[in-house]
Amino acid sequence: MSLIHQDRLFPAEPRARRLARDIYAAIRDLPIISPHGHVDPAWFAHDAPFADAAELFIIPDHYVLRMLVSQGLTLDQLGVPRRDGSVAEPDRRAIWRRFAANYHLFRATPSRMWLDHVFAELFGFTERLSEATADSYFDAIGAALATPEFRPRALFERFGIEVLATTESPLDDLGHHNAIRASGWGGRVITTYRPDAVVNPEGVDFVSNIAAFGEIAGCDATTWAGYLEAHHRRRAAFREMGATATDHGHPSAYTCVLSDTEAAALFDRALAGTITAEEAERFRGHMLVEMARMSLEDGMVMQLHPGSRRNHSAQVLDAFGADKGFDIPGPTDYVRGLQPLLGEVGHRADLTLILFTLDETAMSRELAPLAGVYPCLRLGPAWWFYDSAEGMRRYREIVTETAGFYNTVGFNDDTRALCSMPARHDVARRADAAYLADLVAAGRLAEDEAHEVAHDLTYRLAKQAYRL
Amino acid sequence: MSLIHQDRLFPAEPRARRLARDIYAAIRDLPIISPHGHVDPAWFAHDAPFADAAELFIIPDHYVLRMLVSQGLTLDQLGVPRRDGSVAEPDRRAIWRRFAANYHLFRATPSRMWLDHVFAELFGFTERLSEATADSYFDAIGAALATPEFRPRALFERFGIEVLATTESPLDDLGHHNAIRASGWGGRVITTYRPDAVVNPEGVDFVSNIAAFGEIAGCDATTWAGYLEAHHRRRAAFREMGATATDHGHPSAYTCVLSDTEAAALFDRALAGTITAEEAERFRGHMLVEMARMSLEDGMVMQLHPGSRRNHSAQVLDAFGADKGFDIPGPTDYVRGLQPLLGEVGHRADLTLILFTLDETAMSRELAPLAGVYPCLRLGPAWWFYDSAEGMRRYREIVTETAGFYNTVGFNDDTRALCSMPARHDVARRADAAYLADLVAAGRLAEDEAHEVAHDLTYRLAKQAYRL
Amino acid sequence: MSLIHQDRLFPAEPRARRLARDIYAAIRDLPIISPHGHVDPAWFAHDAPFADAAELFIIPDHYVLRMLVSQGLTLDQLGVPRRDGSVAEPDRRAIWRRFAANYHLFRATPSRMWLDHVFAELFGFTERLSEATADSYFDAIGAALATPEFRPRALFERFGIEVLATTESPLDDLGHHNAIRASGWGGRVITTYRPDAVVNPEGVDFVSNIAAFGEIAGCDATTWAGYLEAHHRRRAAFREMGATATDHGHPSAYTCVLSDTEAAALFDRALAGTITAEEAERFRGHMLVEMARMSLEDGMVMQLHPGSRRNHSAQVLDAFGADKGFDIPGPTDYVRGLQPLLGEVGHRADLTLILFTLDETAMSRELAPLAGVYPCLRLGPAWWFYDSAEGMRRYREIVTETAGFYNTVGFNDDTRALCSMPARHDVARRADAAYLADLVAAGRLAEDEAHEVAHDLTYRLAKQAYRL
Repeated sequence: MSLIHQDRLFPAEPRARRLARDIYAAIRDLPIISPHGHVDPAWFAHDAPFADAAELFIIPDHYVLRMLVSQGLTLDQLGVPRRDGSVAEPDRRAIWRRFAANYHLFRATPSRMWLDHVFAELFGFTERLSEATADSYFDAIGAALATPEFRPRALFERFGIEVLATTESPLDDLGHHNAIRASGWGGRVITTYRPDAVVNPEGVDFVSNIAAFGEIAGCDATTWAGYLEAHHRRRAAFREMGATATDHGHPSAYTCVLSDTEAAALFDRALAGTITAEEAERFRGHMLVEMARMSLEDGMVMQLHPGSRRNHSAQVLDAFGADKGFDIPGPTDYVRGLQPLLGEVGHRADLTLILFTLDETAMSRELAPLAGVYPCLRLGPAWWFYDSAEGMRRYREIVTETAGFYNTVGFNDDTRALCSMPARHDVARRADAAYLADLVAAGRLAEDEAHEVAHDLTYRLAKQAYRL
Repeated sequence: MSLIHQDRLFPAEPRARRLARDIYAAIRDLPIISPHGHVDPAWFAHDAPFADAAELFIIPDHYVLRMLVSQGLTLDQLGVPRRDGSVAEPDRRAIWRRFAANYHLFRATPSRMWLDHVFAELFGFTERLSEATADSYFDAIGAALATPEFRPRALFERFGIEVLATTESPLDDLGHHNAIRASGWGGRVITTYRPDAVVNPEGVDFVSNIAAFGEIAGCDATTWAGYLEAHHRRRAAFREMGATATDHGHPSAYTCVLSDTEAAALFDRALAGTITAEEAERFRGHMLVEMARMSLEDGMVMQLHPGSRRNHSAQVLDAFGADKGFDIPGPTDYVRGLQPLLGEVGHRADLTLILFTLDETAMSRELAPLAGVYPCLRLGPAWWFYDSAEGMRRYREIVTETAGFYNTVGFNDDTRALCSMPARHDVARRADAAYLADLVAAGRLAEDEAHEVAHDLTYRLAKQAYRL
Repeated sequence: MSLIHQDRLFPAEPRARRLARDIYAAIRDLPIISPHGHVDPAWFAHDAPFADAAELFIIPDHYVLRMLVSQGLTLDQLGVPRRDGSVAEPDRRAIWRRFAANYHLFRATPSRMWLDHVFAELFGFTERLSEATADSYFDAIGAALATPEFRPRALFERFGIEVLATTESPLDDLGHHNAIRASGWGGRVITTYRPDAVVNPEGVDFVSNIAAFGEIAGCDATTWAGYLEAHHRRRAAFREMGATATDHGHPSAYTCVLSDTEAAALFDRALAGTITAEEAERFRGHMLVEMARMSLEDGMVMQLHPGSRRNHSAQVLDAFGADKGFDIPGPTDYVRGLQPLLGEVGHRADLTLILFTLDETAMSRELAPLAGVYPCLRLGPAWWFYDSAEGMRRYREIVTETAGFYNTVGFNDDTRALCSMPARHDVARRADAAYLADLVAAGRLAEDEAHEVAHDLTYRLAKQAYRL
């Protein structure tokens, strides 16, 4: 018996299934291009072993945490550290047992598919995780993690990762990336410039962040001109560590083009702590335009993913901090929001702006029509809550007819979980193979074209869009 | 020839169809749990026979009325009583003939599926309803209704209903429920506390309702403290008649937490008739928080179904009253709306708040992410216009991957039509069997798990979520 | 080898595919009813040959242009004339080669399906268009276009078009339609009354348009009463040229009922150029009510398609004018927007108001519930970006269960491209056959009913809804 089905995610109808198998067979073993994610670069800098199954699969994975919390388990019970540093449950085996006893909650979720893939392919399990098998899983995983084959660099190589981009703040000294390069190891791990911490006046610690920004950039970032100069310098430093892209997580897709005087005035109010919510939105909106201008100079690809209402539960934010599963999406207006930016740079084919969404309703109504006409725009893959078999299917169905395949950029795993990377890319490859097979079966695409598109979606488009 | 296909709603592909049959076979005959509906408790109190086919299937069914009206028939022609008590068309056979002549309008609608199910299974018809068969249908149904086997209690038993919840206003004296209990009949018919009439300052007769509220509760409900006390008393009275849940039909999902002083001031303005639309929204929003607080005390499950813009046609409201098919949905913002309530009680695992929606776009964007993390939240089934094969399918596809199966609560029929209950539950069971079969066929769920989930969705989750 | 698959768009499962084939076979050759489109009536007035492949397939087709522009080609490179009359690329063969070299961009888009259909069926190509075949395509198409069989009237007849409606402004003198009638040619080409240019105070040239409106109507259109009189006269003139419908492309679905005094005051401000954006919206909203009133008098069917944010790129508008692919949809609120109009005329079964949408989210939430109860309302088909296989499928899935088949109006091609008409209607017929076959396969519709519905959707409903 196997935990994972060899034909999983393929169409049920035999001819379409055969087509999907053929398409998948040709892309299954292509190298992994991972241009957008959140794996910790320290792992590759130090190459230290992972500790245990709970540390690897539960504590840092907000997909897993949120489902368990939704059914009454607490973050304390799951060993999540509080902001004060305390950990209510130090017993990793007890945490793992709680997870195993609730594994049924994940039925038909992407987490379940990723986990079973890792359990089967990486650790060789054949029995399903459950209360009964919890201990044998915990022990076997722990034993494996102690071996050299399960160190981060070894996994990177085993997974066939051609390039992996992490994401860092401009305040990061890129020490881990430096260490990776200094180590002589050949894995291509690059950084991404994510300036939210110094762009969002409503973020925590904005003022002190700006001070730190100036310090690390080596200039006075407390004036508008100095602030822009600091961006220039940090972007250059990031490019030295391989960065080819910037990443922007804004509450909305609002953009605006301000005069230097207006922008400087908003910046001053932001530093003075007197900026209003509306002004903060304008500041963020203008900064996207500034970032686009810098991208036209230095060639960095922009990524924008608006629409998450972060930290919906103030209690969880206070006790445990951000990224604990309480970021909830809302509607996003891309058409009005992006118009000012597109009015300035939208027709520049030498700019690439990759849009992500958490609002599916914008896909067929706004994003595909926009990306299907503006030369600078590309659509990121089905993302976050949509990073799933159904989400990917809907994405292709509502995007392709208007924007085609070639205004999309292949798959991004967007993960913090190194071990899940092959599983996630495998789901995307299978989902695309299934979609393409259905197109062929329905006489909408020739078989030779389906093969070419599959290769493009898996490999070529990501490299090209991210300039890798 | 049969009116209904034995494999209806199952996948076309033979292997998936066999899987669906197997899954369905094991849940087909499970008892009906009906925790949310609008069947008239008087039927079980009096056990009087239904009069005729038009009274049973047309006049009270706004799904049927709306479709006929949309094609130019009038409510008068369909025998719907006007608010002044007059009935333009007293000839029930004539009404039935109009319906039969227009039966093609219902092709591929849930009404058609429910009706054919009842026609075939309850009355034994084998020929399709049409102008030609209208009279034979009318006569045969009339004859059957006159027999003891078609009295409400007999139908309740024949349908295998384990528990049926009706919905009453706090102003209802629960006399029918009392009579059911006093009769010694063993059917479990319980009530549900639906306080909209005394919670919505913009509803008709709000002021006189509050007077009646105090009267029936035995306290002065015209002060804020007395008003809350009246809720406490009526909730207790409802619990005595079996209620385990409350039900709230608000225009939006807006909530807010007011001080006692603020709430009392709004209540006074509501009684004085000086409350503004915005203040009325705040009053309703705060009352959801008060209801949640009371639920934490008395254990009643909350249900919230926002988003219907009621009585869209003023003419129809004036002439015929509410619930004539002119309630039209609109968008609902759950994320911002519920945040204050969730900030107060969202992490209480001893509270259950079941959310319904008429805005599908909120499903994958807001409801699944919310229910997939807050312990108090559960998602009600595909509801109202989505209470259909396609609606149920989309519901599972856009909810499951983020919130799983176990943050949903099984099926609610939400019906006023007793005879349609088996048909409606059958559609839900078939739709779930089909969905689960497709998951198995796609290698996304093991067959033993699919069987367990099917049982949970059909039976266990509803009992558990509604504390039955 | 064929460019087009004989079973394209049909279900993969063999039994459902056979059903789809049978249903399609019975509707494939029905006459084309085209009640809503933008073909140039001059073609039929003059019956002049088309020049070449680029003029026929690229330069006037904004579906094609937008995809090429989205990948970095410019409108100049594609031979699109600038507003100043200049054409940067006069070499039609060069334009065609650029298109052919980028034909892969259209994979899985409706444009690809339409084009391949025309290439195969009209021109007899068997090899796919590509850089390698570009010249042979260009030459063969050019040679064919020079023959009498490819003149507009011959194509009209060959395509089996029973009636074709074009769309004209009230400022059009209908000279081409007059010429068609005067020519004695038997093809039924009728006009449609599209008054946007004299209804939208924010449109370009509104004031001069009103002057021209009075001139062509033969009355003073600069007073409110005269303006309404001009509408009456032009509507009558359009009806003489066969018009049975009006067409309204508004930014939103907002309507309102103003007094004559209020409406006159807004009209005066519109002419004086002092109208605000909000007042302009009110003027447009009231004009829909005036148009409905006139329709109740003269029997013309109304069409409303709101929600397009036109000319998103100011640069493209300035350089090349409208309709170059930069009209991007946004959300539309039909429920609140239409309530005033429906309050006045919504229950009139002698009025027909056909609603289109570019906001799919309104389909199951607003449009199907509205059309499923108001007698005057009908739903137009999947439109513009949704005029595609997936769009049509989603349309049926989210509309039918609530509004049925009989509140829809069959298919409209909405095209400017004469040659694509058979291809577009073929896609609609196949998509409906596939949907109906799936309903039969799932036991949701009897086979005889599916055949009847297919005929209705293809032919009868369009004729009936548009009073043709």
